[in-house]
Amino acid sequence: MTESIKSKIRTIPDWPKKNIMFRDITTLLKSPDGLKETVDLLYNRYADKKIDKVVGIESRGFILGAPLAYLLGCGFVPVRKPGKLPAECESEEYSLEYGKDKIEIHKDAINKGDKVLIVDDLLATGGTMNAARNLVKKLEGEIVECAFVVELPDLKGREKIKGENIFSIVKFEGE
Amino acid sequence: MTESIKSKIRTIPDWPKKNIMFRDITTLLKSPDGLKETVDLLYNRYADKKIDKVVGIESRGFILGAPLAYLLGCGFVPVRKPGKLPAECESEEYSLEYGKDKIEIHKDAINKGDKVLIVDDLLATGGTMNAARNLVKKLEGEIVECAFVVELPDLKGREKIKGENIFSIVKFEGE
Repeated sequence: MTESIKSKIRTIPDWPKKNIMFRDITTLLKSPDGLKETVDLLYNRYADKKIDKVVGIESRGFILGAPLAYLLGCGFVPVRKPGKLPAECESEEYSLEYGKDKIEIHKDAINKGDKVLIVDDLLATGGTMNAARNLVKKLEGEIVECAFVVELPDLKGREKIKGENIFSIVKFEGE
Repeated sequence: MTESIKSKIRTIPDWPKKNIMFRDITTLLKSPDGLKETVDLLYNRYADKKIDKVVGIESRGFILGAPLAYLLGCGFVPVRKPGKLPAECESEEYSLEYGKDKIEIHKDAINKGDKVLIVDDLLATGGTMNAARNLVKKLEGEIVECAFVVELPDLKGREKIKGENIFSIVKFEGE
């Protein structure tokens, strides 16, 4: 299953800039089998974990997180860029290669003690996921795992989110 | 079902600016019943329509479009803001209240003759959906319907996408 998923991810060299090998999951998502295999693999992993909320990180995290929440019979919560969520928010700043960025979550999106699964497409340096887990912790959710489709182990993102359970479906390294 | 869905949508007055009644679907999505009712209603409507691709418009359209594609057993295709899709794109400009915006789709995302369902959260003035349907037409997809969770009939969005089948789950008008 993992090999079938990996084979459907397209690599775009030098995007968004020179020497980056961009892993493009749109080719996986547009394939009926690819979408099904990916969502089913995640669903099977979490089906008995009594998840209360799936948190998806804007915006590719929405594409995997929403079907997963549906199948798990739980709620879906978006973590978004600033200025997108209309009600009261917690926010968390994080560093980029140059400069800073910020993400937000609605304060009423997670209840204290909720079992939360956080989903994003890519674990690279881990900065975004680290900010997302801090948001969930501010709301006193219990993080069951941080799940990704693709991991780039060379960038050591796992170190940034140390202390959490971490799962990725496919890894690309040393290329 | 529709009333149950409508009751879970929160209204935020004066957001993002004065005199706008913002219809916030995050309260619907975080409810396990709300997410399930919404996705199931759309699934039941399209189950026998032989859809090849569900196109979701960034980024709330991803949250409804992806579970729907999964259930329909078809592929999911994101329409995104410029600079987000790494492969060759078609793009389409559209007018906002002040200025212009642009959305893009991968050229290889839709095959000629594909039966396409386009999904977004909100039909307001219809500008974004009109641009999205033009993108699908450029790729010679056959648009089965344009589907929304919320429609604001006062803004006459249906006129902007005349010629297409249009479906919305709930309407808010004259408020």
